[in-house]
Amino acid sequence: MGRYVVGVDLGTLSGRAVVVDVTDGAERGSAVHAYRHGVITERLPGGPALPPGWALQDPADHVEVLRTAVPAAVRAAGIDPAEVIGLGLDATSCTVLPTRADGTPLAELPEFRDRPHAWPKLWKHHSAQRQAHRINALAADRGEPWLARYGGRVSAEWQLAKALEVLEEDPEVFRRADRWVETADWLVRRLCGRPTRNASAAGFKGLRQDGHYPAPDFLAALHPDLPDLLAKIDDGPLLPPAARAGALTAEAAGWTGLPAGVAVAAGAIDAHVTAAAARSVAPGRMLAVLGTSTCLIMNAETCHEVPGVCGVVEDGVTAGRWGYEAGQSGVGDIFAWYVDRALPASYAEEAARRGVSVHELLDSLAADQPVGGHGLLALDWHSGNRSVLMDHELSGVLVGLTLATRPEEIWRALLEATAFGARTVIEAFEAAGVPVDELTAAGGLTANRLLLRIYADVLRRPLHVVDAAHPAALGAAIHAAVAAGAYPDVESASAVMGAARRETWHPDPTRADAYDELYAEYRALHDHFGRGGTNVLHRLHTLRHRTHPTP
Amino acid sequence: MGRYVVGVDLGTLSGRAVVVDVTDGAERGSAVHAYRHGVITERLPGGPALPPGWALQDPADHVEVLRTAVPAAVRAAGIDPAEVIGLGLDATSCTVLPTRADGTPLAELPEFRDRPHAWPKLWKHHSAQRQAHRINALAADRGEPWLARYGGRVSAEWQLAKALEVLEEDPEVFRRADRWVETADWLVRRLCGRPTRNASAAGFKGLRQDGHYPAPDFLAALHPDLPDLLAKIDDGPLLPPAARAGALTAEAAGWTGLPAGVAVAAGAIDAHVTAAAARSVAPGRMLAVLGTSTCLIMNAETCHEVPGVCGVVEDGVTAGRWGYEAGQSGVGDIFAWYVDRALPASYAEEAARRGVSVHELLDSLAADQPVGGHGLLALDWHSGNRSVLMDHELSGVLVGLTLATRPEEIWRALLEATAFGARTVIEAFEAAGVPVDELTAAGGLTANRLLLRIYADVLRRPLHVVDAAHPAALGAAIHAAVAAGAYPDVESASAVMGAARRETWHPDPTRADAYDELYAEYRALHDHFGRGGTNVLHRLHTLRHRTHPTP
Repeated sequence: MGRYVVGVDLGTLSGRAVVVDVTDGAERGSAVHAYRHGVITERLPGGPALPPGWALQDPADHVEVLRTAVPAAVRAAGIDPAEVIGLGLDATSCTVLPTRADGTPLAELPEFRDRPHAWPKLWKHHSAQRQAHRINALAADRGEPWLARYGGRVSAEWQLAKALEVLEEDPEVFRRADRWVETADWLVRRLCGRPTRNASAAGFKGLRQDGHYPAPDFLAALHPDLPDLLAKIDDGPLLPPAARAGALTAEAAGWTGLPAGVAVAAGAIDAHVTAAAARSVAPGRMLAVLGTSTCLIMNAETCHEVPGVCGVVEDGVTAGRWGYEAGQSGVGDIFAWYVDRALPASYAEEAARRGVSVHELLDSLAADQPVGGHGLLALDWHSGNRSVLMDHELSGVLVGLTLATRPEEIWRALLEATAFGARTVIEAFEAAGVPVDELTAAGGLTANRLLLRIYADVLRRPLHVVDAAHPAALGAAIHAAVAAGAYPDVESASAVMGAARRETWHPDPTRADAYDELYAEYRALHDHFGRGGTNVLHRLHTLRHRTHPTP
Repeated sequence: MGRYVVGVDLGTLSGRAVVVDVTDGAERGSAVHAYRHGVITERLPGGPALPPGWALQDPADHVEVLRTAVPAAVRAAGIDPAEVIGLGLDATSCTVLPTRADGTPLAELPEFRDRPHAWPKLWKHHSAQRQAHRINALAADRGEPWLARYGGRVSAEWQLAKALEVLEEDPEVFRRADRWVETADWLVRRLCGRPTRNASAAGFKGLRQDGHYPAPDFLAALHPDLPDLLAKIDDGPLLPPAARAGALTAEAAGWTGLPAGVAVAAGAIDAHVTAAAARSVAPGRMLAVLGTSTCLIMNAETCHEVPGVCGVVEDGVTAGRWGYEAGQSGVGDIFAWYVDRALPASYAEEAARRGVSVHELLDSLAADQPVGGHGLLALDWHSGNRSVLMDHELSGVLVGLTLATRPEEIWRALLEATAFGARTVIEAFEAAGVPVDELTAAGGLTANRLLLRIYADVLRRPLHVVDAAHPAALGAAIHAAVAAGAYPDVESASAVMGAARRETWHPDPTRADAYDELYAEYRALHDHFGRGGTNVLHRLHTLRHRTHPTP
């Protein structure tokens, strides 16, 4: 029997494949393929302009990763492809597309090529907020029992809001779409030739709870034709994480260079498979994927309703557990906003002079500041709040500015604000009876040492950091190993194949004490602005949208 | 009889002189002289380093303006100096220095040349804040009746706090100083050879009310030797604005090139003489000098205690009226902070590409935004608040930030915040029974057309703009005309010699309505952060100073 598995991770701007040793999780080779069309926000390729808030992808870009990155990773590994026993795949989510019954994307049919609603909608396609508001209002009004599993509010990013947007804005696309399918599931079908659904996306993004999607009469109250959605999403068996979806077809073997017949794992969500790569799937072990936004992923034995959780789903992260996902809607993108929109020219010049990135310059200038020395406090809501407040009409706040305030001080206050935001979520878990025993970080922001130190100090707990170049793809490979039968379950595979810890940051008691004071101020400001002490942020949002109507 | 007067304005970084026609106020010539030593903040010239917060000036720099700018202005005017009938002079205030009994500055004596406390302390010398706190606490404790004339809190910038700082930190300088004198009065003595005091500075900066300075027992409670200050400041007759202080001496005639014997007007404060230049001295006419900070100056028939006013002084602006001064401690310097510390490189590059200043670029990008379109709201307290809250431990706040927030939107929110701050002051005047019938703007920021439009809209009243290149120097010249007997009083001289209006900005009703909504939000935020809804800004100030102790 062969000893290798392949993991494929479909990200926002690129896809990557890794070849991993089943016996120890070592990465033997990898390759990255950047999407030709990236994120489509301005206009369809060769087609019409798109309204603000739109974010689409080209399904051909995803297939191209299978055709290029997989064979390249195998070549880089220098292994015999015949030794590969399984293939696992994760993608961003909810990234969802309409297809014909045979799986053909509507966007690939000539008659729909110029219809924006026929294209896959990327997770951060945000123009279905009005639909999400109506879904939430109706669900609250009817007392839908599933609503509390989503912290009391579902997202505009998810399957239902996006589907309702299609139905209302381009009903023909909705009608002609036989299927409404997550990208990961659609690609798994391309690999093994049969439709399946992964329980994780069905639960976290499709609102499936206790064996049911939202009821037809609930859907009909939103739009008379919306109950038709149920047949479109109910396509093939519902598989728990790392289940075997099927065997690689001859056609897909031709694309990938892998042997036909190897096991293909059920589709999966990127942050969720990362938990396996981080050895963070046992109950009580929380994974923080620190990137553009932050995903917090954890398993527990039981189901608790945590205020502001994105979702609690049975079999949601690994089979047989209740998987929890929570998150902060803006983290790395707040830092990117700052660098792009508020970093003075003199700092860019100084970074160039020193031969470092502006992030490195800011970190080095901020690193030695005593806690509280900048006199600043920020609320990290520049992209709204999708944690305990679940309110995308909130916005960022910065207090304590003086004429002496320096850029590196604002920078540090923003790093700290996201740490305070993470502490708020973790405290909500614990207050709801879901203890967090261990915390591990993965994601692009783990390159920032100052950030990690601040998180350890603010959270007052050790912060372990995953040592993997491609943690999501490694997680997909671990799922492949389970699907191929090399391990009985993800937890045992993760214990062997998961990445080592690169390092552990321990809190400094003095700094942590000082941060306790600042965190108390953060919570007071958080509750004042976020829980009705003032509704100024909502009124500013209303004023803004009154002058810039949503298209 | 000659028909010209000369006005001299001693600013923070330079002095200027203008030659003005008494019959119509036309400027016939002007000249500017930049101080050799500017503002001395880092170290004494050839001497020791200075602590943070210090700001000194060299008295020789002021005399040099009389020796160079006055003759240059007369030459530029092309007039016969024999036709000059009077000279008036204003300076920043409270800019105060210790001298010997004959008027020699201690700083010019070799034995004191290296003693920082012997030098003139510029208005923005801020290291006497601890002394100011004690003065305020004691005055409140004893129920000193004069305290309410200063809005309940006196400034660290003023004569008493600065004198107490000298006494406590360099008692020999205090003891050897026979006089403690405002720069304007010191220079008037240099011009006409006899000591005088101007009632304006004595009231606004020296705490003189109802014929008395603070009582000896009050001063003794601050320091046993402080009552000695009274003899040091009681030097020569107390003159109302535009009174004749004396005749130009032969020595000063030699410096200035003007005829010996011409009338010299009493010393004056820069923003106050500007009211005469702006034809804004009749009761109910308010002048806003918009610069680094904002001064609001107005006369009234009666004395009212206005919360947060800097001072109410009889004969304070013109003889026979009650003069009011209020202000905002940070306006232009908040904008400068933004450009220096938060404007991205791409904007600096774009401004260079267009051949405009970054301010002009920001204004042009911000000008067409609908009111409220940016979704932002700021509190303009980056330099504390010296208007209705009178609290220098407050700091700036910015709310409503999103990932889409652009630099020109923050810029506009900062402009608007200062307009809301001005509205807060004007509403306080009117609520205290001091109606504001007319509003005129002068100062460097009147070059900013977007700012003027925003002020007119926010204040919901016409905003007149003074058309004068050197409004303070013109005001000093008007005082000179009165001192020379060409007019019976400043009000009648101002009506003839005051500058024309360059333009008047009228509020747009639609924008003004929208600003009413935003102003209501500003006031709510203002009271929450400034009046104890939360003390987070004070706690952040404490944290900051705990880690950076005041030297």
